[in-house]
Amino acid sequence: MTIIGFDADDTLWVNETYFREAESRFYDLMAGYGTQKQLADDLHKVIMQNLSLYGYGIKSLMLSMTETALGFMKDRPSARIMEAILSIGKEMLNKPVILLDGIQDALAGLRDKGYTMILATKGDLLDQERKLHKSGMGDFFHHIEIMSEKNEDSYLKLLSRLHIRADEFVMVGNSLRSDILPVVNIGGFAIHIPSQSTWVHEMIDPKLINGSYRTIRHAAEIPAVLEAHHHPKNHV
Amino acid sequence: MTIIGFDADDTLWVNETYFREAESRFYDLMAGYGTQKQLADDLHKVIMQNLSLYGYGIKSLMLSMTETALGFMKDRPSARIMEAILSIGKEMLNKPVILLDGIQDALAGLRDKGYTMILATKGDLLDQERKLHKSGMGDFFHHIEIMSEKNEDSYLKLLSRLHIRADEFVMVGNSLRSDILPVVNIGGFAIHIPSQSTWVHEMIDPKLINGSYRTIRHAAEIPAVLEAHHHPKNHV
Repeated sequence: MTIIGFDADDTLWVNETYFREAESRFYDLMAGYGTQKQLADDLHKVIMQNLSLYGYGIKSLMLSMTETALGFMKDRPSARIMEAILSIGKEMLNKPVILLDGIQDALAGLRDKGYTMILATKGDLLDQERKLHKSGMGDFFHHIEIMSEKNEDSYLKLLSRLHIRADEFVMVGNSLRSDILPVVNIGGFAIHIPSQSTWVHEMIDPKLINGSYRTIRHAAEIPAVLEAHHHPKNHV
Repeated sequence: MTIIGFDADDTLWVNETYFREAESRFYDLMAGYGTQKQLADDLHKVIMQNLSLYGYGIKSLMLSMTETALGFMKDRPSARIMEAILSIGKEMLNKPVILLDGIQDALAGLRDKGYTMILATKGDLLDQERKLHKSGMGDFFHHIEIMSEKNEDSYLKLLSRLHIRADEFVMVGNSLRSDILPVVNIGGFAIHIPSQSTWVHEMIDPKLINGSYRTIRHAAEIPAVLEAHHHPKNHV
């Protein structure tokens, strides 16, 4: 029995694009205080410094943008900029959920074939629940897990809790670092669907992945990959 | 088979005290801009306005404090105050976890009696995981559920997912609004342990609760209450 895990952000729906837009608006706002490179380097540094404390998500970005802006503005912070940072974040939280091309059909097809699907995503609890609700995609999933980190340990705990063996588990996602590497390392299979826009933090050298995964361009290819994975001899 | 659900903040460990301290520091910081009542009223208003967007937790408080401070400081925000708000939040996230008196013994006693216990808490995902880890209390719980809201619907979903009947479920917590009322309304039993400090948002008129719950002063009383609940005739 194969259980398919799906990542959410940039696997089911557009996410990274919104983060890129927000950062771009931040650079425009702060253009008087530094070059885009200086601003981007500092923001990235602050985000990384705060990651273990704040975790992932939009509120964390808002706080790190605020901290970065204060660092550049020194003794004379601009009220307009500080308020604009809060607005950028609130607008992100209210963005529509745009499903990626073909994902709904792909999930419906997998459901019709009898696969059990679970959702395993990082990010902010309330924000991910809101996106699931807005998208109407929640019904496809037998279980929804919002994780503070996606590593071998957290996948092992998830599978153990749901009584799923690693060799029954297939994870589908856009991040080599979070969706593919840890799953392959614990003995699962993974399907990588690269997205147009991937956060640099999620990028790793594919050579680090010492196990079995497949890269596809479109969710519609998932059934064929699963078929080949289950019956490799038919596909030699 | 009775399954006992425990709230975390202010049921297992000190939480509200840290929020009160943070607010108090905020009022001190902002003392030049308004009376404490003005500051408190505005902060409360902003927190409530943002609750459906931000959810519960420390990052949400940091963002609402920032927004409130900007509202008072108008065109000339103070860099010192803006930075201090971020520091207050980061210090809160790094606070030690202080278990409430006797809770560890009470949980160990319930475990020894063979009860299955689950944790059901609101708040920020990463922050609650950190507190569970720091406190070492995670091992007592068969399941840990971090919820964006505690209402009848979310309890029903939780119980359904864990295959627990409502009449087998006993919820223990400090909040009448989140831990007692919704559980009693769906047919469960609840044990209220009031805490020294309860957020006004969690307060409701006890008369609203139209069902069975018990109020106790100390977690050590839980076994006796469960005994009386299971065998009411012995205690008439």
